[in-house]
Amino acid sequence: MPRYDTVSFLSDYGQADEFAGVVKAVIRDLAPHVTVIDLTHEIPVHDIRAGSLALARCIQYVPAGVVLAVVDPGVGTARRALAVEIAGGAGVVVAPDNGLIAPAIAMAGGPGAAVVLTNAEYHLAAPGATFAGRDVFAPVAAQLCNGVPLAELGEAIDPAALVPGVIPVPRLDGADVVAEVLWVDHFGNAQLNLGPEDVAGWDGVARLQWGEEVRTATVVTTYDDIGSGAIGLVLDSYGLLAVSLMRRSAADELGLAPGTEIRLSPAGAERAGGRVDGGLTIPVALRRTDDAGESSR
Amino acid sequence: MPRYDTVSFLSDYGQADEFAGVVKAVIRDLAPHVTVIDLTHEIPVHDIRAGSLALARCIQYVPAGVVLAVVDPGVGTARRALAVEIAGGAGVVVAPDNGLIAPAIAMAGGPGAAVVLTNAEYHLAAPGATFAGRDVFAPVAAQLCNGVPLAELGEAIDPAALVPGVIPVPRLDGADVVAEVLWVDHFGNAQLNLGPEDVAGWDGVARLQWGEEVRTATVVTTYDDIGSGAIGLVLDSYGLLAVSLMRRSAADELGLAPGTEIRLSPAGAERAGGRVDGGLTIPVALRRTDDAGESSR
Amino acid sequence: MPRYDTVSFLSDYGQADEFAGVVKAVIRDLAPHVTVIDLTHEIPVHDIRAGSLALARCIQYVPAGVVLAVVDPGVGTARRALAVEIAGGAGVVVAPDNGLIAPAIAMAGGPGAAVVLTNAEYHLAAPGATFAGRDVFAPVAAQLCNGVPLAELGEAIDPAALVPGVIPVPRLDGADVVAEVLWVDHFGNAQLNLGPEDVAGWDGVARLQWGEEVRTATVVTTYDDIGSGAIGLVLDSYGLLAVSLMRRSAADELGLAPGTEIRLSPAGAERAGGRVDGGLTIPVALRRTDDAGESSR
Repeated sequence: MPRYDTVSFLSDYGQADEFAGVVKAVIRDLAPHVTVIDLTHEIPVHDIRAGSLALARCIQYVPAGVVLAVVDPGVGTARRALAVEIAGGAGVVVAPDNGLIAPAIAMAGGPGAAVVLTNAEYHLAAPGATFAGRDVFAPVAAQLCNGVPLAELGEAIDPAALVPGVIPVPRLDGADVVAEVLWVDHFGNAQLNLGPEDVAGWDGVARLQWGEEVRTATVVTTYDDIGSGAIGLVLDSYGLLAVSLMRRSAADELGLAPGTEIRLSPAGAERAGGRVDGGLTIPVALRRTDDAGESSR
Repeated sequence: MPRYDTVSFLSDYGQADEFAGVVKAVIRDLAPHVTVIDLTHEIPVHDIRAGSLALARCIQYVPAGVVLAVVDPGVGTARRALAVEIAGGAGVVVAPDNGLIAPAIAMAGGPGAAVVLTNAEYHLAAPGATFAGRDVFAPVAAQLCNGVPLAELGEAIDPAALVPGVIPVPRLDGADVVAEVLWVDHFGNAQLNLGPEDVAGWDGVARLQWGEEVRTATVVTTYDDIGSGAIGLVLDSYGLLAVSLMRRSAADELGLAPGTEIRLSPAGAERAGGRVDGGLTIPVALRRTDDAGESSR
Repeated sequence: MPRYDTVSFLSDYGQADEFAGVVKAVIRDLAPHVTVIDLTHEIPVHDIRAGSLALARCIQYVPAGVVLAVVDPGVGTARRALAVEIAGGAGVVVAPDNGLIAPAIAMAGGPGAAVVLTNAEYHLAAPGATFAGRDVFAPVAAQLCNGVPLAELGEAIDPAALVPGVIPVPRLDGADVVAEVLWVDHFGNAQLNLGPEDVAGWDGVARLQWGEEVRTATVVTTYDDIGSGAIGLVLDSYGLLAVSLMRRSAADELGLAPGTEIRLSPAGAERAGGRVDGGLTIPVALRRTDDAGESSR
C-alpha cells in the first residue's frame, strides 16, 4: 500500500546532463503514483554547505513524503547513505550522511528513526559506483513511497549521530556584529546570518564594512523601499537580513559572495550627523517570528 | 470540489535557487491533485517586457486551469496582485499587475472577472514580504484549483483597468518598415515584430539595416532553406518573421538583441541588379493565419 | 483507452525559452493523464551526436511509454519525422530521423514497427514550420498515449532503414588504444569510449597522451580513490572509463572536450620504474557487465 506520493528532490546535478532526469525516470518506473517536485538541481558542484542551506530554507515548505537530497562528493566511498524519518514519520529524508541534511532535519524537529541503506536488494545493479542517485537513492525513495518499511532498507543507526552541518553563527565584537553572507540568490541579494533582532536598537541604519569597503545601509521591508543608489538590509522571506540594491544585483555591484564576512556597526548617530550614503529610510517595526528564527540554526 | 487540475507557471526565478521549487511544493501541499507545467523560469530578471512576450507566445497552448506568472520587481509594494479570469472562466491568470499579463490576456480574448488578492486568509504567513510567489501567488493558485471562488480572494476590480503591456509596433517610413527585435531565442533567431504581410510584394527579398550594418535577407520557411553564408527572414512558429542563419546563431553573429531596431527595405529591384548578398532564395507563398496575426498584438 | 502514461522528453531546447514548456502544455492539453519526465533539455544546440549519446545513456532507465527526442537542425525540411516502437511495443520513440535515436533504439533491442508522421490530422495547425516539437511531435506523443494506433499516424517504413547514429569506436595501435572523449559531464568527468576490458592486463595504470600532454592515470572505482593531484580512470555509472580528478573538473584542468582524442598506453612497467605521476592506486577487480557493455554500441 503506497505510503507517500511526493518526492521533493534537490541536488548538485545541474541541468546540462540527464542525471536528474534519470533519477526521476527510475522513480517513475518503480513508483508510478509518485510526483517529483524539483526543488533545485543547481547547488554548486560538491558544495555541501550551499546544499544544506538551500534544504534548510525549503524544508518547512515541502509536502509530506520523501525528501531526496544529493550533494555527494564522496559517492562510492565509506560515507553512509541514509534514510531518516522526520516529523513523526510524515516524511523521510534520503541522502548521503555528510552534513547536507542535518540542518534541515533539525529545523523539521530533529531526526526520528534512521537507517543506513545497506540492503542492496532495494538498489539497482550498476557497472560502476559513481551514480548513487540513480542506483541507491532513487530506488530507495521510490520503495519508501510504495510502503516498504524503513527497517527493511538497512541497519538502524543512532539518529543523533548524523554528520552535523556547518552553519556559521554571527559573532559580537563590542557594539559590532560580524556576520557572513550565507547565500547569494538569482537576483543578487546577499542573505546574511542575521535577523532583524540582531540590529534592534540601531535606529534602522547600519554601517557595513567588508574588505576595503565601508557603506551605510538602511533596514527596509521591500526592495523598492531601498531607493536608487542606496543599499538596503531587506528583511527577506526567511526572516533574515539580506544586503540588496533596488532592482540591481547587490552581489555583483558590491562584490559579495557566499562566505564574505561583513562587519555591521550601529550607524544611527552618524546618520544624524549626515554621513549616511543616502537612500530612503522607511522605519518599520520588525518582528522575527519563531518559525523564521529557526531558519538560522 | 476541484475546479482546475493544471497550473502553468512562468517566472524570472531562474534555476539556481529553490524559488520555483518551493512555489511548486506549496501548490503540491495545498492542492495535491494539481500538475504544474513549467513554461520557463528564465525570463531575464525583472524584465516585464520579455515575460509578457513569452506569456503571449504561450497562452494559446496552455491547458485549461491556472496560469501563474511572476516577474515582480515591485514585490511587496503597492503594485496589485491579481487573479483574472480568461476564456469564460476556463482559466485564471494569477500575477502581479505590472504589464506582465495584459498582452496574453488580450490574446486569450480579454479579461473576465478580476480581483485584487487582498484576502490574507488565503496567503501564507511569512516573516518578510519579498517572496510573494511562495506566500501569495502559489497558495491562491492552489486554492483556485481547489474550487475557492474568485470573489473569496479579494475585492473585485474593473478588469479593463489592468496595467497595459508595452509591445512595440513597427512603423512605416516611405517604402521602408522600421521593425524591432522582440526576442532572441536559444538558437539565436531574432524574432521581429513583423509578419510576412508586412513585406508582401517585396519579391521575397529585403534589405536589412541596423547600426552600421546593411545586409540582404530572403524570406524562407525553414532554416535550411537559408543556405550557408546567407541571412534568412524565416516565417517562425508564431507567424512572425525572424532574422536567422542556417544552423548558426544570427543574434551572436549579427549582433542582434531584444530591442535592436532594424530597417527593412524592398530589395527585389536591387536583387535583379545583382546586389543581393548571395544565399539560396526559395520563393514561397506566405500566408499569415488569423491566429498567428494575434500574436503580435 | 489510454495506452501509455509517461512521456520521457529530451531536447536541445534549453531552458531560457518556453519551448520545452509549450511542448509539455500541448501534451497536457491533449492527454491529461500523462506525466512528462524531463530527461534533459540542455543538449548542445543542433548536436545530434551529443543527443544520441545522452539518449543511449538514458534508454535503459526510462519507464514504459513514449520517448520524445528533439534535436532537429533540419526541422521543416525533407528529413523524416518518425514514431518507432521498441521493446515489443512497451515503448515508442517519437523523433526526427537524423541519427539521434538509432543508438538508443539499438540498445533497447532494435526497432519494431515504424511510421513516418505524415498524417497531419494528428498535428497542430501552425503559421510556420519551425517548431515541430510543438506542432508535430508533442501531439503525436500525446495521441500515442491516448491509444491512437501507430499505423494511424502515417506510412509504415522499413525500421531497418533509420538514419544510423555515429558513435566513435576506439582503435588499437600496437599495444596502445586510441580513444575519444564521448561526453564531459557537469562535474568535469570526461567519459571515454572504452570499458575496463580495454585496459585489462595493464596493471591498473595507463599513460594518457593528448595534444602535447602526457600523464599517467590509475584505474579506480570512486572519485575519492583518485587522490589529490592525481588523475583517475574511473569506472563510471555506464560501465565506461572516465578521465577524472578528485573533486575537481578534469575537463577544465586537463583541457578535455567531447571529441578529444586520447592515446592510452600500458604504463605498468613504467610504474614499477617510478614514472607514475603519483596518486593513490587502488587496484580493483573490474568487471564490465553485459548490460553496461552495450552502452558503447
